[in-house]
Amino acid sequence: MSKKPLNIGLVGCGFMGRTHSNGYKRVNDFFDVEYRPVLKAACGRNEAAAKAFADKWQYESVETDWRKLVARPDIDAVDICTPNNTHAEIAIAAAEAGKMILCEKPLSMDLVEGQKMVDAIEKAGVPNTVWYNYRRAPAVTLARQFIDEGRLGKIFHYRANFLQDWTISADLPQGGAGLWRLDASAAGSGVTGDLLAHCIDTALWLNGPIASVTAMTETFVKERKHNLSGKVEPVKIDDACAFLCRFENGSLGLFESTRYARGHKALYTFEINGENASVKWDLHDLHRLQFFDYKDDSITRGWRSIHVSDGDHPYMKNWWVPGLQIGYEHTFVHQVADFLKNLGEGKSTSPTFREALATQAVCDAVLDSAELGQWQTVVPV
Amino acid sequence: MSKKPLNIGLVGCGFMGRTHSNGYKRVNDFFDVEYRPVLKAACGRNEAAAKAFADKWQYESVETDWRKLVARPDIDAVDICTPNNTHAEIAIAAAEAGKMILCEKPLSMDLVEGQKMVDAIEKAGVPNTVWYNYRRAPAVTLARQFIDEGRLGKIFHYRANFLQDWTISADLPQGGAGLWRLDASAAGSGVTGDLLAHCIDTALWLNGPIASVTAMTETFVKERKHNLSGKVEPVKIDDACAFLCRFENGSLGLFESTRYARGHKALYTFEINGENASVKWDLHDLHRLQFFDYKDDSITRGWRSIHVSDGDHPYMKNWWVPGLQIGYEHTFVHQVADFLKNLGEGKSTSPTFREALATQAVCDAVLDSAELGQWQTVVPV
Amino acid sequence: MSKKPLNIGLVGCGFMGRTHSNGYKRVNDFFDVEYRPVLKAACGRNEAAAKAFADKWQYESVETDWRKLVARPDIDAVDICTPNNTHAEIAIAAAEAGKMILCEKPLSMDLVEGQKMVDAIEKAGVPNTVWYNYRRAPAVTLARQFIDEGRLGKIFHYRANFLQDWTISADLPQGGAGLWRLDASAAGSGVTGDLLAHCIDTALWLNGPIASVTAMTETFVKERKHNLSGKVEPVKIDDACAFLCRFENGSLGLFESTRYARGHKALYTFEINGENASVKWDLHDLHRLQFFDYKDDSITRGWRSIHVSDGDHPYMKNWWVPGLQIGYEHTFVHQVADFLKNLGEGKSTSPTFREALATQAVCDAVLDSAELGQWQTVVPV
Amino acid sequence: MSKKPLNIGLVGCGFMGRTHSNGYKRVNDFFDVEYRPVLKAACGRNEAAAKAFADKWQYESVETDWRKLVARPDIDAVDICTPNNTHAEIAIAAAEAGKMILCEKPLSMDLVEGQKMVDAIEKAGVPNTVWYNYRRAPAVTLARQFIDEGRLGKIFHYRANFLQDWTISADLPQGGAGLWRLDASAAGSGVTGDLLAHCIDTALWLNGPIASVTAMTETFVKERKHNLSGKVEPVKIDDACAFLCRFENGSLGLFESTRYARGHKALYTFEINGENASVKWDLHDLHRLQFFDYKDDSITRGWRSIHVSDGDHPYMKNWWVPGLQIGYEHTFVHQVADFLKNLGEGKSTSPTFREALATQAVCDAVLDSAELGQWQTVVPV
Repeated sequence: MSKKPLNIGLVGCGFMGRTHSNGYKRVNDFFDVEYRPVLKAACGRNEAAAKAFADKWQYESVETDWRKLVARPDIDAVDICTPNNTHAEIAIAAAEAGKMILCEKPLSMDLVEGQKMVDAIEKAGVPNTVWYNYRRAPAVTLARQFIDEGRLGKIFHYRANFLQDWTISADLPQGGAGLWRLDASAAGSGVTGDLLAHCIDTALWLNGPIASVTAMTETFVKERKHNLSGKVEPVKIDDACAFLCRFENGSLGLFESTRYARGHKALYTFEINGENASVKWDLHDLHRLQFFDYKDDSITRGWRSIHVSDGDHPYMKNWWVPGLQIGYEHTFVHQVADFLKNLGEGKSTSPTFREALATQAVCDAVLDSAELGQWQTVVPV
Repeated sequence: MSKKPLNIGLVGCGFMGRTHSNGYKRVNDFFDVEYRPVLKAACGRNEAAAKAFADKWQYESVETDWRKLVARPDIDAVDICTPNNTHAEIAIAAAEAGKMILCEKPLSMDLVEGQKMVDAIEKAGVPNTVWYNYRRAPAVTLARQFIDEGRLGKIFHYRANFLQDWTISADLPQGGAGLWRLDASAAGSGVTGDLLAHCIDTALWLNGPIASVTAMTETFVKERKHNLSGKVEPVKIDDACAFLCRFENGSLGLFESTRYARGHKALYTFEINGENASVKWDLHDLHRLQFFDYKDDSITRGWRSIHVSDGDHPYMKNWWVPGLQIGYEHTFVHQVADFLKNLGEGKSTSPTFREALATQAVCDAVLDSAELGQWQTVVPV
Repeated sequence: MSKKPLNIGLVGCGFMGRTHSNGYKRVNDFFDVEYRPVLKAACGRNEAAAKAFADKWQYESVETDWRKLVARPDIDAVDICTPNNTHAEIAIAAAEAGKMILCEKPLSMDLVEGQKMVDAIEKAGVPNTVWYNYRRAPAVTLARQFIDEGRLGKIFHYRANFLQDWTISADLPQGGAGLWRLDASAAGSGVTGDLLAHCIDTALWLNGPIASVTAMTETFVKERKHNLSGKVEPVKIDDACAFLCRFENGSLGLFESTRYARGHKALYTFEINGENASVKWDLHDLHRLQFFDYKDDSITRGWRSIHVSDGDHPYMKNWWVPGLQIGYEHTFVHQVADFLKNLGEGKSTSPTFREALATQAVCDAVLDSAELGQWQTVVPV
Repeated sequence: MSKKPLNIGLVGCGFMGRTHSNGYKRVNDFFDVEYRPVLKAACGRNEAAAKAFADKWQYESVETDWRKLVARPDIDAVDICTPNNTHAEIAIAAAEAGKMILCEKPLSMDLVEGQKMVDAIEKAGVPNTVWYNYRRAPAVTLARQFIDEGRLGKIFHYRANFLQDWTISADLPQGGAGLWRLDASAAGSGVTGDLLAHCIDTALWLNGPIASVTAMTETFVKERKHNLSGKVEPVKIDDACAFLCRFENGSLGLFESTRYARGHKALYTFEINGENASVKWDLHDLHRLQFFDYKDDSITRGWRSIHVSDGDHPYMKNWWVPGLQIGYEHTFVHQVADFLKNLGEGKSTSPTFREALATQAVCDAVLDSAELGQWQTVVPV
């Protein structure tokens, strides 16, 4: 069966460039979709690095100016994997060039900028998606399925953490390759856009809109050497951010993220308590979903640890056999698979730019609340 | 070895009356202390119930009016196990009568009332303690020991939950025996005084004073039948309460409690993240402490599950042998043991009334913040 | 309500003397039974130690010769907590004196001796029980209930371990107080009688008779200083023992015990796999039962961790409230409670001497198999 | 950088064909090795199925007769993924044709046949390996590293299980595609060759040779419909197999495998207890290693759950970042990576055919012991 080619132009050859490239290369081995991604061009400002990346991943060509990439007629879809402060410009240009767009999260530096991106992309009418990949961990998708099936009933509580510990050392510099996430001018915010945005995206997907928030942020290490200037400079990102919120459905939310939680590498967890059942998930064991069902016989009730590896679990019939787990990278393969499937049906893939804008609105409200020291209403998107 | 008798007068023959009585009866079988508690009198307003309780636990006599109990010259110590709205009156009378006092938590209905209690007890100069029993779960005491030994270093984060699910049904009434905790006139508050107060007491003990808070509360079931009036009445307690805070040591705190977390019976958990190490505990496996030590060889680092049952763990040399766990009730035995030991040294036992007042100050700030929708400074105690 | 006194004479003032005494002292505080145990006499060869023990636990009198204790008309029941090599003589004398008998496990040094004990006690017709206490951990009793309710269906597999690590050091001596378990002349065997006997008792109770076994034993440390002789002597006990077996119901069994499993203090675990469901338990978290039910919806299947602390769980309505765990010592309280309840009905309490003899028959077959290097049929009891 | 091509000819287009193909296609994206596998030909007897497989995985050509594949001069390496009863013939022919060989496990139907294979391959002197993939789960490799570093010290105990539950239904047929594992004529044995062989391979690698065994097997469902004959036929494989053993280093071993352990999909677990430390692993959470170190401060000792996802853990620097787990399929990528790396150095890759023969010797001893009902000495290889 011959497949339709989909020519990919990837901008940004860092960590996310790898996860996306892997998604494109693997999707057809495991998912029956109409399209076959073709790694047409990789683009990075550093030519040597871009060439090495392209060689490694077998991209057909290299660009060092994203504008050229966007202008190439042989590119169908632009994938944006660059630091946050460049998303808007590239995405708007790509939309105007009529390209499909797959953009790394967070969508934008702030809500205002994000709105411009959404306007451009909706005007262009191009298929689009934002890489909030954790929705497509099979256990997370299964949680959504349980909710859709009505297993949880009315929701009372939602709580989520994203805990890391990699910036505790005061000797770690900020800025430049690998460390732009500590530089506010490149990242916009710290853990809020990097980590909490994931938690918020999942929450909006699973539990609906957030109405209002009260937040606090902290920067534990106030100054770090900057790799670009070579000087010690104030750290302007948030090292930690926590907020309370009310969802529109009446449930209460608690969210926290930090890079100072010693012992946790990338522990994204969420728990949802409903009237009839509860679910709990964490990224360190992403192949499991914890589930408590009040309808079980009372003497047998307990939290079930579901090993999400059966053929009737989301996405899993495409992989191996029961008991054999998949990992982090597969979430990206799943997003590519869904993107290609939706493409055949002329649809964008959730989360779209508009849906990602709603996450941005919560992030903005959170940062505003932390700065002002008062509750903030989330701007509806 | 003959021991000095300590005559106990217990007020309140409910659940806490049982846990305390058990503490008094068992302490000498396991701890070498100078005193032996004597169950002199049990006091309850319902005479039949008080007699049955006294018979069960072998109290020597019964009272139905706590004033008579307080006035009895053969009573050395008054133990207050009644609903929260009666603590102040009994404690102040007992202090004025020169009795030692062991009072259930929370100390009082609010900070103002609590201050009067502290004034009375400090004026009387009587040994006193408040039953925040979880400090004396050996794993919790071990966490304190780790902190005192400097194993954690600078603290960045403190988070605690107390999750229950027993009031989800809207058919559950409020008020009266067993259900006074849902009646604001008897309980003062809902989960804040009942559950969060435990979390706060532990936090102040382990991590020092809380400076400021922002909170939210919710009452999910707005009306319930009242057992005393027989009528459906508004529910005035908080079913759920969550708050963010800043500790005076610069660390950030998140606290949450609820009775609507399906799947959790009494899941009190806390986690503390320090620069060098972290600890985590939960009440459903109270005999374990989770510990992560960054000083371990990098390839061997991981969370350790410490089975706190060895002879060199706090309190444990008095019990069985390694591997054999103790349970909930033992926390009360430990508090009695410490009370008797301190008595020999003329000291009160932590948490004292004054220390419990600090917890009350946080509770008040939390409830005020939730009502006002703004950050509140905690009143120093 | 006045209760009938049951006068206890305890022989042996060591670790098991403590657990049993605690059982007697606590039972009436928590269980409504017709009898009240009275701690009439404690007996130990070392008078000072026996007096200290009696003082601690408030026994009314002290004996240093068990024959005198057995002869006392004011003793109703003799509780045997002495090393294994003394069980038979004391039990037979007590039976002949018409006393009820509660005997520590293992019943006897071997099957032949055990048979004499059973003969004597059945001839005397006295109520009796053997302290295989783990049956009465509520989670273990719940496993039995699940089996009785048919939840598991046909059983395919039974596996059990009892892993300890306290004798790894070659410097540990053998013999005498606290260390008689390493002395074959006092203990009969090593881990087989001490640890595997527990596993076998539970297995016979949950899964029926064992037909045949193949076993191996090992003594890792060949010589140890003997505390009584003062000399280095050969170690004649088994440090480790493992066996395979076939149950009469067609299921397969694997059993292992050792005192050389670094990291495990007293990890008794068992797992039973049935056609429809499976259960798993371990002593280090004795308040939990793991349960897998194939009848759950396929996408929700997983092992449930049941926190066995609800009022409808075995024994638990007598203790606290859901979520609040009990511990090791409560298994003995439960056995006392059942003994007293059965006494009112004129019955012995399982496991009786005869039932404990069946465990002895398996132990003998295991040790014979290990010695002979071939499968052994278990002698029916 | 241009890489040397290595032309692969794959025989067998089933489940293992997929895992191996994935390994070949992914290795160069993540590992810097001199060779690049080229998917030259896929071979299957059913032409349509083979073509579909080749199309899916992008093999350049298709064969339906493995003899033709072996004879093709453009094939460098033959990968054998067919049922067990065909391994010998294909491997010997491939060796004689001078091809490198990568053979699925178990090596052969029995020791005699395996010896012939080893003779042929060693005579041919071709690079070879057998796909005992679990050695290359990073957590398992880390366990080996701990042992090599002397962290465990003298080993006392080794225990391993491989528990599945997929053949419990008596309605499941035997024979033919997907079910040849239940047909003794194709599989040789049941769980012994399929599951225990994995456990044995790991054990020999981590703990050295096994000297002697005593075993039992069981076939719970005695007859099943055969897919090839269409008739109900006796089931001749072992549904379950367990054995005790003595390792040459003096440690004791327990092994068990079954397809009747309800609740376990593919739960391969092992635990090793050493004098100084212990390790434990299971396939359902293959990214974790449990580690207990006696050298930790006594009050802090506990089992550590190591999340094996850091750059200094085996293989992990090639994947993502700390906290982001990999899965089952990566074990095959690792074996390909090691094969290619060793190829550059002119070496075979462990486990070689000869090493796999040692596993076969244990399997044979186990099956003989089960049949004869007596201990068997393992034939040295």
